[in-house]
Amino acid sequence: MLIQLTDNCTNQELDNIQTGLKNISYKGNVVETRNAKYLICNGKKEIDIRLFGNMPGVKDIHIVEDDNKLVSRKWRVEDTVITCNDGVEISRKDLTIVMGPCSIEDEEQVVKTVDFLKENGIKFMRGGIFKPRSSPYAFRGLGIEGLKFFSRICRENGIKVVSEVMQVSQIEEMYEYIDVYQVGTRNAQNFNLLDALGEVDKPVLLKRGMSSTIQEFLASAEYIFSNGNENIILCERGVRTFEKAYRNTMDINAIPYLHDKSHLPVFADPSHAVGIRDYVEQIALSSVMAGADGVLIEIHEVPQKAASDGAQTLDFYQAKRAINRLRETAELRKRIMV
Amino acid sequence: MLIQLTDNCTNQELDNIQTGLKNISYKGNVVETRNAKYLICNGKKEIDIRLFGNMPGVKDIHIVEDDNKLVSRKWRVEDTVITCNDGVEISRKDLTIVMGPCSIEDEEQVVKTVDFLKENGIKFMRGGIFKPRSSPYAFRGLGIEGLKFFSRICRENGIKVVSEVMQVSQIEEMYEYIDVYQVGTRNAQNFNLLDALGEVDKPVLLKRGMSSTIQEFLASAEYIFSNGNENIILCERGVRTFEKAYRNTMDINAIPYLHDKSHLPVFADPSHAVGIRDYVEQIALSSVMAGADGVLIEIHEVPQKAASDGAQTLDFYQAKRAINRLRETAELRKRIMV
Amino acid sequence: MLIQLTDNCTNQELDNIQTGLKNISYKGNVVETRNAKYLICNGKKEIDIRLFGNMPGVKDIHIVEDDNKLVSRKWRVEDTVITCNDGVEISRKDLTIVMGPCSIEDEEQVVKTVDFLKENGIKFMRGGIFKPRSSPYAFRGLGIEGLKFFSRICRENGIKVVSEVMQVSQIEEMYEYIDVYQVGTRNAQNFNLLDALGEVDKPVLLKRGMSSTIQEFLASAEYIFSNGNENIILCERGVRTFEKAYRNTMDINAIPYLHDKSHLPVFADPSHAVGIRDYVEQIALSSVMAGADGVLIEIHEVPQKAASDGAQTLDFYQAKRAINRLRETAELRKRIMV
Amino acid sequence: MLIQLTDNCTNQELDNIQTGLKNISYKGNVVETRNAKYLICNGKKEIDIRLFGNMPGVKDIHIVEDDNKLVSRKWRVEDTVITCNDGVEISRKDLTIVMGPCSIEDEEQVVKTVDFLKENGIKFMRGGIFKPRSSPYAFRGLGIEGLKFFSRICRENGIKVVSEVMQVSQIEEMYEYIDVYQVGTRNAQNFNLLDALGEVDKPVLLKRGMSSTIQEFLASAEYIFSNGNENIILCERGVRTFEKAYRNTMDINAIPYLHDKSHLPVFADPSHAVGIRDYVEQIALSSVMAGADGVLIEIHEVPQKAASDGAQTLDFYQAKRAINRLRETAELRKRIMV
Repeated sequence: MLIQLTDNCTNQELDNIQTGLKNISYKGNVVETRNAKYLICNGKKEIDIRLFGNMPGVKDIHIVEDDNKLVSRKWRVEDTVITCNDGVEISRKDLTIVMGPCSIEDEEQVVKTVDFLKENGIKFMRGGIFKPRSSPYAFRGLGIEGLKFFSRICRENGIKVVSEVMQVSQIEEMYEYIDVYQVGTRNAQNFNLLDALGEVDKPVLLKRGMSSTIQEFLASAEYIFSNGNENIILCERGVRTFEKAYRNTMDINAIPYLHDKSHLPVFADPSHAVGIRDYVEQIALSSVMAGADGVLIEIHEVPQKAASDGAQTLDFYQAKRAINRLRETAELRKRIMV
Repeated sequence: MLIQLTDNCTNQELDNIQTGLKNISYKGNVVETRNAKYLICNGKKEIDIRLFGNMPGVKDIHIVEDDNKLVSRKWRVEDTVITCNDGVEISRKDLTIVMGPCSIEDEEQVVKTVDFLKENGIKFMRGGIFKPRSSPYAFRGLGIEGLKFFSRICRENGIKVVSEVMQVSQIEEMYEYIDVYQVGTRNAQNFNLLDALGEVDKPVLLKRGMSSTIQEFLASAEYIFSNGNENIILCERGVRTFEKAYRNTMDINAIPYLHDKSHLPVFADPSHAVGIRDYVEQIALSSVMAGADGVLIEIHEVPQKAASDGAQTLDFYQAKRAINRLRETAELRKRIMV
Repeated sequence: MLIQLTDNCTNQELDNIQTGLKNISYKGNVVETRNAKYLICNGKKEIDIRLFGNMPGVKDIHIVEDDNKLVSRKWRVEDTVITCNDGVEISRKDLTIVMGPCSIEDEEQVVKTVDFLKENGIKFMRGGIFKPRSSPYAFRGLGIEGLKFFSRICRENGIKVVSEVMQVSQIEEMYEYIDVYQVGTRNAQNFNLLDALGEVDKPVLLKRGMSSTIQEFLASAEYIFSNGNENIILCERGVRTFEKAYRNTMDINAIPYLHDKSHLPVFADPSHAVGIRDYVEQIALSSVMAGADGVLIEIHEVPQKAASDGAQTLDFYQAKRAINRLRETAELRKRIMV
Repeated sequence: MLIQLTDNCTNQELDNIQTGLKNISYKGNVVETRNAKYLICNGKKEIDIRLFGNMPGVKDIHIVEDDNKLVSRKWRVEDTVITCNDGVEISRKDLTIVMGPCSIEDEEQVVKTVDFLKENGIKFMRGGIFKPRSSPYAFRGLGIEGLKFFSRICRENGIKVVSEVMQVSQIEEMYEYIDVYQVGTRNAQNFNLLDALGEVDKPVLLKRGMSSTIQEFLASAEYIFSNGNENIILCERGVRTFEKAYRNTMDINAIPYLHDKSHLPVFADPSHAVGIRDYVEQIALSSVMAGADGVLIEIHEVPQKAASDGAQTLDFYQAKRAINRLRETAELRKRIMV
């Protein structure tokens, strides 16, 4: 059960509700986000919601049987719309395209990428400055200095910055320079990081763990939401299976399934989901057709020279073609899926 | 290495080529299909194909490094077109839609389904009469008597019959009544069955094993081809993973990948790949966008009453809507993917 | 619910019981094995077994909630003991060791292997004569002629013959020469083959499908049992996972789990489960410690020259050492697991 | 290539070696642990190690082709022995048994558990005070206050404390109270945490990620080692597969495989690997037979009342029996595996 509290709910009112819950052996967790106040109620008995519906301090009340309450569509049937500053929106209405290199390498690279994005009307640039690498001897990214010029060049050109955060201490360090925090697949169940991102007032793009179930993926989002941040984007990026012909196995089923169960926007990352340049565009198009609200695609002026993940990176020519096709596909989908 | 032999290649010419192969420690397997003769050559040394290129009896010669030779696009770059009798074609040019119930139940059901298919211009009906069931006590299908009326009603209405064959002895039994033999996921590595289907002059729709790698899937097709039957359709139907929110995990990556590696047509079976009615259409649309040449969709007038697989079955209203959307998507794909 | 019928249960008595079942909307499947008669009852209501307990023709009655009834330990709490001719037993009492080459190659190989087995007191020899191979161009076994000399040499020396059957037509062909039919992982859900093996009076060693769940594995055994053959050995041989450092992932959990759920003997096949010679012995020992009643191990006088699977095959020296260690481990287990 | 440097290697000597590496396009990473100095050399060319073998500052030099160098047995053939303070050792020589509850609940629980451990000669107690939970509303552990009394009671009784660390900031907080830091499966690729644990002078028990490959698992250990901490225990705890009959699938193959590839001690966690009380002991015994140097087993005086993971927890009676059987098994193994 999920109780939406009134904005001006008093402590006394809240106490009364909590007492009512205790009487029926329920536990109520108070959640306060930037937008609203909630009481997440867990217990075993079936209850009569009318007992609470008229209590002072209660705005609305919903039966939500899902394990994950706040991210569930059971109580919030409208799709969540995320508004960045400048009024740029992430929502079901328009396909959001996020492009950029796997790793930020130098200013020239950022300038060229930003130019390309502007020319093509793309508003979000991704680029890693803290890189989780399986070997400790591999390139681990430029760090915060890289983020500074990446951010400066993007802001001069009206482009939003998306970059991965790997640990709690980086959240504040990155805050000034970032528009969307990305949580990578290896940190999808780093609960301390999720807790801390719940306290931030910027959107979080949460990648699915490479072997997270859908339930666990939503629970990770619930961590962020229940700590106060409602602006979460779920991103399917392929799961780990027995098949080794490609880097991961894109779980296309997840896209309609997540949309059905949650009100949060759902993105796809075809670059990691297939990991082979020649198939990235087709997986991107199919993701849009399955209902993705956005796609993350790795691009580089000269993929062969990329500091990481070159094999799955599109060059600007391929990226431009993909953008056009993605937009046509998104339009078709909007037209036929009324 | 794959050598295409001339149609009138003599035994003497073939002997000479085989002797040449033996001299370089290669082994040549002669394959004779309804369309042509081939020599599949396996060995370890790198060889100079000019040694064989001018020998009498040799039509053409190709280096094919793939494990699976005959199904590879390395030697046959054109997409395979399969022509059923009456000139109905399965190919990349037009999206093939195959619909029908999981199990054939009675004549009335077939009549109603056929009517629906005709009204909507669908030329292929699927329907199980031999059903592989995990429990020995479950409904195992009507058997050959069911196939007889299924086939009669379809033929009276110009609809092609697609049905699963489970063992060698059924091939002949079904022959008169069938247009496309379907091999199910549990028999994807039943090599005796594949061998025997290689000797038949009707197309085979081969489903991927639920945990077959792409290499094994292509090897199963190679079994059929190397026994003489070139008319094979590869069908992705979802793989088995850790995720249990849906019946299987649709491997959408497989669609562009198979198209790239093989000249055979590639179908998708969204009904089994997701296994939940509400998502079947979206997975079907995304499969088309990923390049599927055809889709198999389970439909039933009243899914709740279906003898099997009701939960993943569309009713006629949903099926009609899906057909329209599939056609619009196929058209878009044809237009943008030049 | 599972009803054991009396040996002399009349048709009239059976009809009365079936009528009783129909009245409570249950369906009864009659199963007649070489040992006994059963009625497998499926339905939705909870029922009072006393309604049936005193009916003429009923010997005993059990509530078996498992999907798989006949193979369940819920009604048969004693471990099944399988007796081959000559009184050789397969049971929990003594560890059964089955050894032999992947493929039967020639008489000399069989003679040498049989000599080795006799010297070491091993009573079962495995050897493939029909080989399921992923490539159609690979060695597919010597066929029935190979089985003839394999069987002759074994019988002259008191060794039992274990070999894989791949299709229904081979059952009769092999019957005279075989002591235990083996069903391979790729045929674990070849239901026609399982049905037919149910009608045979020789034991069946059933390997788990490479991605079969435990439920599906037991259901495959239920197919054999429900067709009349109670002498089934369950064999864990590793499952397919994301890990590619070894051929398969030995599912050691399956051994105690299967013993707990089923009364059938449980074997392990460490050769396929890990697929690397250096680790086969340790996986075999750990399987025994987990409760395996038998192990299948591939051996060859010169593994490097084996026609197939050489990399996972022990030579005679390694095999001898493993036999001794296996016996010591089995003894320890018997002593401490009272 | 891995170069062991002399303890008194000068900067000038190091510079000369680095220059030599640069000349052959190799990159050398200097690693300094509490025990020794290393130079990890990565490059593409094959090189003649004699070029470096006689340079001043070089103690020894090894070709290590593995991706993970420092943890590889290719250069250090002896098994690593980890010495805690008081001279308590973790090594191949004796089986290390670690027992305790999933979560530390209160002083009484710790006292009772410590009493049990002392009576049975067990020297390590595990107990969670920071709990990673999939739901944000579940019990997250007592935190540092719990660790304080847990540690105090253990130390008064000569028991070593093993507890999970979830983030960098906790390392220092826990330092005074802990003997072995445990890294949980969800943090197995939390590279910042691994880096930081490399700087600590206490052993780290590293659990395998639930879908980490063996290569990734060793790479995570390489992170810790290359940051300066050589005292690492690898712990197999089951991987995620399609099988849902148990919590995870114990990867028993990993135990001999890890021992073969790495010099580090290998533990098994049967409680998580199977997740069902009735099978924990058998999986523990089989792990020892496969070569595990230690086992982690969850115990609780009254498992039904445990704050978490009760279903996989042994009571004291079961634990005592398991300890005896584990010791007998370890003895047998030592005796037969010479």
